[in-house]
Amino acid sequence: MTFVRTIDWVDGAIVLLDQTALPHEVRTVRLTDVDELVDAIRRLAVRGAPALGAAGALGVLLAVRQGHRHGWTDDEVAKAIDRIRVARPTAVNLAWAVDRVAYRLEEGDGAVEREARAVLEEVSAANLAIACRGADLLTELCGRGQRGDEAAASSGLRLHTHCNTGALACVEWGTALGVVRALHERGAVGHVYADETRPLLQGSRLTAWELDRLGVDYRLVVDGAAPSLIARGLVDAVVVGADRIAANGDVANKIGTYPLALAAHRAGIPFVVAAPESTVDAATPDGSHIEIEDRSGDEVVAWDGRSVAPAGARAVNPAFDVTPADLVTAIVTERRTVRPAAGERPA
Amino acid sequence: MTFVRTIDWVDGAIVLLDQTALPHEVRTVRLTDVDELVDAIRRLAVRGAPALGAAGALGVLLAVRQGHRHGWTDDEVAKAIDRIRVARPTAVNLAWAVDRVAYRLEEGDGAVEREARAVLEEVSAANLAIACRGADLLTELCGRGQRGDEAAASSGLRLHTHCNTGALACVEWGTALGVVRALHERGAVGHVYADETRPLLQGSRLTAWELDRLGVDYRLVVDGAAPSLIARGLVDAVVVGADRIAANGDVANKIGTYPLALAAHRAGIPFVVAAPESTVDAATPDGSHIEIEDRSGDEVVAWDGRSVAPAGARAVNPAFDVTPADLVTAIVTERRTVRPAAGERPA
Repeated sequence: MTFVRTIDWVDGAIVLLDQTALPHEVRTVRLTDVDELVDAIRRLAVRGAPALGAAGALGVLLAVRQGHRHGWTDDEVAKAIDRIRVARPTAVNLAWAVDRVAYRLEEGDGAVEREARAVLEEVSAANLAIACRGADLLTELCGRGQRGDEAAASSGLRLHTHCNTGALACVEWGTALGVVRALHERGAVGHVYADETRPLLQGSRLTAWELDRLGVDYRLVVDGAAPSLIARGLVDAVVVGADRIAANGDVANKIGTYPLALAAHRAGIPFVVAAPESTVDAATPDGSHIEIEDRSGDEVVAWDGRSVAPAGARAVNPAFDVTPADLVTAIVTERRTVRPAAGERPA
Repeated sequence: MTFVRTIDWVDGAIVLLDQTALPHEVRTVRLTDVDELVDAIRRLAVRGAPALGAAGALGVLLAVRQGHRHGWTDDEVAKAIDRIRVARPTAVNLAWAVDRVAYRLEEGDGAVEREARAVLEEVSAANLAIACRGADLLTELCGRGQRGDEAAASSGLRLHTHCNTGALACVEWGTALGVVRALHERGAVGHVYADETRPLLQGSRLTAWELDRLGVDYRLVVDGAAPSLIARGLVDAVVVGADRIAANGDVANKIGTYPLALAAHRAGIPFVVAAPESTVDAATPDGSHIEIEDRSGDEVVAWDGRSVAPAGARAVNPAFDVTPADLVTAIVTERRTVRPAAGERPA
């Protein structure tokens, strides 16, 4: 099984797999305009922290090329780049990648393109490293689990994951789902429970699609069911991604992550976060300083444009939650393993 | 604002408000056949533990009348009653009410009808008593809360609830939502967060409809968002219903309840269960003995008949979870307040 890259630079344009069309249609879109990219980021056609980093990097290149075509001033290019930078506020990777590539603006187009392509290569390489390190860690943590070595070895690990953190979120390979894939390739996965991940169902639409293509045995569950499956002893470990990690180890991730950490803590099973180093934000001391994106309540009260609530019903729709460091067994990056619950700090 | 009774006996038939049609249509159905009733229970046209008690009570009367029309033997009547009794396994009220009314079979039709109508009256009266007692308790618990008397008194309580526990679930008035209603009528509610309650959206479809009619300020949230709202200090108390309460105080309720209890416990806010005495099952020593109904995975992977996951995707779909007694601040019934977290046992 091979995935195309979720996002890439092809013949002077950003080409990305439109994730809003999955699982029923595999559709790529070609973007040559900054506003198209900002729209694609906002409507989640491209999503997932590492993929947003790639989008930010390629976005700077896109702005430069569009600027040339339209005779923009440096100030106009800078404003276009800033629109990309702030298209979504919570994922630190987007702003990080934009800043990194924009730093090369004075060196000319060639330097911008090289830096943007370097970001993509690094994201891919980092994800592969995360997947291998995470697989090693889970093997170690769960080998000592409640069921004992023998049971885990004979039936495989029972893993729980949330949202989508696979190749779709990460250019290729994936973070948390990359860990699942690496374990699967070692024959170590029994089955995977995947939260559907309301309101946008990235679990049902995207993670299920990836697990299906990988040949992993999986079951979808509603988000509210996950904690009780963990309490009933049906899960050996929880593995999720991150959108921003504070210096103290607090982790912002897709809404619905925090209850998994609470349940894992009570059940005494590992709660592991797999994310690139670029997700660690040393400038954010703890989770209380992370801005949480509030999205439209329409995502909650309507389904495919059809209302599921009384006319006029309102919803609050935070896109992320913060899991406190003391509930995080380990954070796995491409370089290291940090254990916040044991008092270690990522920055 | 007045509700019609959710379920009642009218002119020799069960008349019930079909909850699957809400919030867009207020539709009543008339049942004269046991199989129609079993179907209505299974497809959740009537749902909620107290309303299921009423359905069970009236179901015995329905079976007797249908038996007369079709010349059934006593054995055939008993078999029909048993089909009602086991239509859903987790809510103890259904079996309890069926058994209570069936006990009158030998005394003749009149005794059966009197007993069935008595169950309805008692359910209504019990819910009113639960609502008042629960409102008193929450006022007491939250008056001593983190924000202090003054803040709570000036802006009103911020409550979180799950699924539907209002008049729709309870013949009239409600249990947990009855508590909200009683507080609202005292001017003590600031606003209510209601979980949408996947997979069947009883929160979005039913609780929002009731809160709207009551004039309560409310916001819907996806189930995964609730624990982080609690962690962020946006909620003063959680109040939910119950489908079965074990002797030790473990509480089975709609899937997605347990994460609310975990979050409330960590945040130090009250987690209150409002339910009739008939929900307390002294024969169940603890939560591990409660049978959890597994419903079809189709409720998760399809939405209004349209697939939201890859073809062939499978789901596990437990309808209930169990909240352990140590996380339950109080259970409020029509007769008493029990505090399991403080070591008190309901039976």
